[in-house]
Amino acid sequence: MQLGLIGLGKMGGNMRERIRRAGHTVIGYDRNPEVSDVKSLKELVAKLDAPRTVWVMVPAGTATQTVIDELKDLLSPGDVVVDGGNSRWTDDEKHAAELGIKGIGFVDAGVSGGVWGLQNGYALMVGGDKEHVDRLQPVFEALKPEGPYGYVHAGRVGAGHFSKMVHNGIEYAMMQAYAEGWELLEKVNSVDNVREVFRSWQEGTVIRSWLLDLAVNALDEDKHLEQLRGYAEDSGEGRWTVEAAIDNAVPLPAITASLFARFASRQDDSPQMKMIAALRNQFGGHAVEKKD
Amino acid sequence: MQLGLIGLGKMGGNMRERIRRAGHTVIGYDRNPEVSDVKSLKELVAKLDAPRTVWVMVPAGTATQTVIDELKDLLSPGDVVVDGGNSRWTDDEKHAAELGIKGIGFVDAGVSGGVWGLQNGYALMVGGDKEHVDRLQPVFEALKPEGPYGYVHAGRVGAGHFSKMVHNGIEYAMMQAYAEGWELLEKVNSVDNVREVFRSWQEGTVIRSWLLDLAVNALDEDKHLEQLRGYAEDSGEGRWTVEAAIDNAVPLPAITASLFARFASRQDDSPQMKMIAALRNQFGGHAVEKKD
Amino acid sequence: MQLGLIGLGKMGGNMRERIRRAGHTVIGYDRNPEVSDVKSLKELVAKLDAPRTVWVMVPAGTATQTVIDELKDLLSPGDVVVDGGNSRWTDDEKHAAELGIKGIGFVDAGVSGGVWGLQNGYALMVGGDKEHVDRLQPVFEALKPEGPYGYVHAGRVGAGHFSKMVHNGIEYAMMQAYAEGWELLEKVNSVDNVREVFRSWQEGTVIRSWLLDLAVNALDEDKHLEQLRGYAEDSGEGRWTVEAAIDNAVPLPAITASLFARFASRQDDSPQMKMIAALRNQFGGHAVEKKD
Amino acid sequence: MQLGLIGLGKMGGNMRERIRRAGHTVIGYDRNPEVSDVKSLKELVAKLDAPRTVWVMVPAGTATQTVIDELKDLLSPGDVVVDGGNSRWTDDEKHAAELGIKGIGFVDAGVSGGVWGLQNGYALMVGGDKEHVDRLQPVFEALKPEGPYGYVHAGRVGAGHFSKMVHNGIEYAMMQAYAEGWELLEKVNSVDNVREVFRSWQEGTVIRSWLLDLAVNALDEDKHLEQLRGYAEDSGEGRWTVEAAIDNAVPLPAITASLFARFASRQDDSPQMKMIAALRNQFGGHAVEKKD
Repeated sequence: MQLGLIGLGKMGGNMRERIRRAGHTVIGYDRNPEVSDVKSLKELVAKLDAPRTVWVMVPAGTATQTVIDELKDLLSPGDVVVDGGNSRWTDDEKHAAELGIKGIGFVDAGVSGGVWGLQNGYALMVGGDKEHVDRLQPVFEALKPEGPYGYVHAGRVGAGHFSKMVHNGIEYAMMQAYAEGWELLEKVNSVDNVREVFRSWQEGTVIRSWLLDLAVNALDEDKHLEQLRGYAEDSGEGRWTVEAAIDNAVPLPAITASLFARFASRQDDSPQMKMIAALRNQFGGHAVEKKD
Repeated sequence: MQLGLIGLGKMGGNMRERIRRAGHTVIGYDRNPEVSDVKSLKELVAKLDAPRTVWVMVPAGTATQTVIDELKDLLSPGDVVVDGGNSRWTDDEKHAAELGIKGIGFVDAGVSGGVWGLQNGYALMVGGDKEHVDRLQPVFEALKPEGPYGYVHAGRVGAGHFSKMVHNGIEYAMMQAYAEGWELLEKVNSVDNVREVFRSWQEGTVIRSWLLDLAVNALDEDKHLEQLRGYAEDSGEGRWTVEAAIDNAVPLPAITASLFARFASRQDDSPQMKMIAALRNQFGGHAVEKKD
Repeated sequence: MQLGLIGLGKMGGNMRERIRRAGHTVIGYDRNPEVSDVKSLKELVAKLDAPRTVWVMVPAGTATQTVIDELKDLLSPGDVVVDGGNSRWTDDEKHAAELGIKGIGFVDAGVSGGVWGLQNGYALMVGGDKEHVDRLQPVFEALKPEGPYGYVHAGRVGAGHFSKMVHNGIEYAMMQAYAEGWELLEKVNSVDNVREVFRSWQEGTVIRSWLLDLAVNALDEDKHLEQLRGYAEDSGEGRWTVEAAIDNAVPLPAITASLFARFASRQDDSPQMKMIAALRNQFGGHAVEKKD
Repeated sequence: MQLGLIGLGKMGGNMRERIRRAGHTVIGYDRNPEVSDVKSLKELVAKLDAPRTVWVMVPAGTATQTVIDELKDLLSPGDVVVDGGNSRWTDDEKHAAELGIKGIGFVDAGVSGGVWGLQNGYALMVGGDKEHVDRLQPVFEALKPEGPYGYVHAGRVGAGHFSKMVHNGIEYAMMQAYAEGWELLEKVNSVDNVREVFRSWQEGTVIRSWLLDLAVNALDEDKHLEQLRGYAEDSGEGRWTVEAAIDNAVPLPAITASLFARFASRQDDSPQMKMIAALRNQFGGHAVEKKD
């Protein structure tokens, strides 16, 4: 089939390649003319036969909103837009409504796979009306990994991004789990072979996983991770997961702890621990560490 | 080679079977005469050629201590005892010292594999002197999964159980991660296909793992887990992991949160939340829920 | 001075009384004619001399928005509206802008004091332009406790409700602190006099506080809180505190743990712990508890 | 009455002073001859009339054990030893048994008050047999604050230190509560007067407390705590509280979070966050921060 694809960055570029390998026609647009197949969104739309299918793969927030706004004007009733970026699920209903006014369909697709997706396939979590989702099926088939897994029509509009968001929340806590265990093993004297302990866990254990394989890769590159700083960004989905949990009164202690650990990792010094130090000094005369 | 194996329960029984399948001689002893190969520890020791190797696979704590005490009297210098149970790593040094007085070697082995071990092999994390560990190598080879993983000599005496303990701590937080994500997905309206979301994650995602496969199995048996109570025991290793972290001043927020979630799951009513309710009533006149 | 006061519930009614005791004129309006001084908002506005000052004390959200909308039409340039309810700080900027279009000033006031406020005074945290805040000073003086504390002009519009929100977040974690300690003391055998331990802490300790006094009151009414269920609502501010922390990448582990403990207290059974039970059963054959 | 007091450091020295002011005879011993009233423990014991009462106020652990061992030899049946240091409650039973063999009584006393105790009195939580506790009553009366609070006979041997330990656990979480709130207020733009917000809370709020008063003192000395590093020691009781909770399967999320925040505050760089960074790099190609 024929697909318009907007956004040809690290993710979008590889996705174009994988869809083409499956024999489909992809017309890609990117602001960067060196990677773009067309010069403008207008040209992209003109090159597609109606009913058109356009996949948006640009940063969540303003960039996605801008593209949706432009597509609303350029596309026709019966066309379908897919948002495959990392949009917040609450944006999906808004986008579906905005496009729906003109009779344009909307599908949200959470995409997992990172730098490994081109080779192994991308996991897809999709939300939207069956009629629109069905039309995209050949593209989903091309993108997903081989075999029975890696694709789900999770529910109505928003369900795709919601599922992907929860996937990332789970990812945060799984990473934190390995990280906590690794730090504890590195700290004690009796275990002198932490990397090999991690390596051994890759078979026969309850905790074997792809993330564990990656941890072993990382330790093979840098046995005690001495080259790195303990500094981690967070990308939005972790925050949204906790916010969704709060909206729904669901306790998420492990996922939230993982998010907070990232926040703390980015602080040069902890303001709240200054207050703790100040209070200890006030009531106990405990020494405080002054700044240099 | 020849191995004495003490404790033929769910784990020990299957391990005897797997070691025998590899062509070794196993003489097993259990208090239950129906599964035991010999009538007493004394008979077991008598049937083994020196230098003997005896694997202890009984519950941690008193039961293990009792067997170690008896073996100390029955065995001879040059023999080696392996503790493959779930002993606390702090017991290992004690046991090694007690046996060492008589010239008997000691190796601790953390064993993972559960009900799947007979078929897939057991992951082994081992601590002890190289000389003693080397002697056990044929048995370790028989027990471990095929392939390059599933076995590690982690360090000195205690390192095996310590590594297995941390493995279980990580396991707690990984299970909690999936559990939190599952609850959140089940709670929202937009996602109407939570089981299929979990199933789809088995390929192409960052969070694919054996535990995820098991979660899908469980959901296939009971789509919304309606047959179950939200009640989880904890088996010691999770507690010891947190205690080891405290001893070493390592923060373990996600693993500890997972442990506390299990504690709370076993309370009919939460005493601490009674105090919260009482305080809210005191300062705000907020209604409290009285017991029936 | 003269004040219009909208909303004469548990809080508003007592505040009217306290302001009147200070010698000011309060014209109160409530939908409940039995407590209302006037029949309508229109009548209330008509009875006030310009420039008017109107204090809104109704539930946050729709109720407050409705009153603000009506006041926008009824009031005149130079009048000032105070929102003393539990509005989210993000609503304040919106309300200030909406009223500002007509030249009406806006002040947000976080009010603490609960059922004790009439007697002891209400703590006030206020946000807004100095010009508007200054005009309210006599009312603030009437409401606040005697002495140097209990009132602050915290910053621009929104700062009052933000400060009150953080106050409540801190309150959540302080209550949780006492509750956790109480549960632990009640659990162990050696301490047979937990209520008297709490009572003794009221002097000479680091943890003496008004909340501790209330805890002792509660224990005097019900020594082991046996009459209560461990069930606690949350009122919005706790959730908003965590959301504000997420927006600002500030880790709030203790406050968030306290919020999640309340969420969990309201669940008959924990869905996430069902998943934990299911996973334990899958890999270890651990028994699960079936529902009745 | 007559009291032997061993250990005349920051705490013990002030306590001697306060007991003397109440009209009692205190013979103090310290390894530092400049503050000691006698030259040896032996001399101290010789100067006391039987039945003797000896208060031990030295660091928990080895130092306390050494003194207990010496007193066991020096004292006579009918004498009573009080351990007023920060001993772990589990040591108390051991000490009571060791002394009991010789017919010497034992009382454990948790003491709170810090640098303010001389002036305001010390809060005392006491464990032991009624007969021994009663004998100490005049000393407890001298040490405790005036008024009805500040003293409790909490239960059998160990109950005093256990109660004091829980007091400190609660203290950790209360400090963390204020610290988290303070950091959040400092982070946002709308609140430009955080110190004054804290000051205002000292009356009329739910969160007023002695710790809040101390926080205001600290902020008066250093408005934004810019002189301090966010670094906090922990003194043992916090750790023991969490360990006791684990022993008793009591969830302590807020107190434990507070302990872990202190652990993290003492790390130059977080090992676990290095692993998070490494994993993000592995699966997403996310940039990592290399060490300088």
